[in-house]
Amino acid sequence: MTQATVTASELEQAIRNIPDFPKPGVQFKDITPLLSDPRLLSGAVDLMVSAFKPGDVDVVVGIDARGFIFAGAAAIKLQAGFVPVRKKGKLPFKTHEQSYSLEYGSNTIAIHQDAIREGSRILLVDDLLATGGTAEAAVQLLERIGGRILQASFLIELSFLRGRDRLARFPIRSQITY
Amino acid sequence: MTQATVTASELEQAIRNIPDFPKPGVQFKDITPLLSDPRLLSGAVDLMVSAFKPGDVDVVVGIDARGFIFAGAAAIKLQAGFVPVRKKGKLPFKTHEQSYSLEYGSNTIAIHQDAIREGSRILLVDDLLATGGTAEAAVQLLERIGGRILQASFLIELSFLRGRDRLARFPIRSQITY
Repeated sequence: MTQATVTASELEQAIRNIPDFPKPGVQFKDITPLLSDPRLLSGAVDLMVSAFKPGDVDVVVGIDARGFIFAGAAAIKLQAGFVPVRKKGKLPFKTHEQSYSLEYGSNTIAIHQDAIREGSRILLVDDLLATGGTAEAAVQLLERIGGRILQASFLIELSFLRGRDRLARFPIRSQITY
Repeated sequence: MTQATVTASELEQAIRNIPDFPKPGVQFKDITPLLSDPRLLSGAVDLMVSAFKPGDVDVVVGIDARGFIFAGAAAIKLQAGFVPVRKKGKLPFKTHEQSYSLEYGSNTIAIHQDAIREGSRILLVDDLLATGGTAEAAVQLLERIGGRILQASFLIELSFLRGRDRLARFPIRSQITY
């Protein structure tokens, strides 16, 4: 277990609420004040990976784009590799794609077909768990190529959107819950 | 100085050439095999930050989206904060924007107006230095909000595109040059 050096309360105080972004009626959780503080950034990543020690995880999977920040940092902390899940059309090699529903319309994400070895132990990381649509699609892609997901770890969870219900087959961790 | 554990030659061998991506005639440098290897990932980041030790840099600035992976990792290695430069429309708070020319058309990136403190010592990180248009625009944004750029560090440099010439006012580092 990594020793955490900050509290969830400190992290929460560094998150800025932005009303009506990206659209009217939505309150956006702006994590940039947290990211720019060295102690809070490192401490947040420590908390997000605290169920594991180096050697427990083969790859940290990050979701395009803010998830890349935490997943890159988590991979260093855990001495693991990094694998990206990206928006469709961004990955250059052979991919699998997975679509999921949004409030209006749908979105498609992709993973390289050779992104991991069969049986790889995976920590899935993103900044925010909202409806869970993106994370669920990422899980489907990872399992399709033989990944074994140990945990999905988020900085923030918007629990009223019940995204956790879509990811019921493995542990879900979040540091700050609204 | 951080001790590097891999060589540039090892890193280069882990990069995959993808012909005709994202468009015919372009050969894309696919870094995902490097990223997924724990030793190569950590070693690449060590090399990219090797001019500095913890305490030398206030914030590592990463460029959306692949730059976030290396910048998140570099921030952990250097015990620094992380600041994102993003495509226009993605950052929720008050921003400055900077446009730059592409081969056909133009692109616009943005930074939060309060992203850094005046005089912050900055390491700018991205995976690839090509024409230098994005990096030059990022530098303009960072200097507009009072940043002091110590170095721009890239994993890969396509030297035949002469991007280095657009970033002449501070040291440029790249680990793999084509």
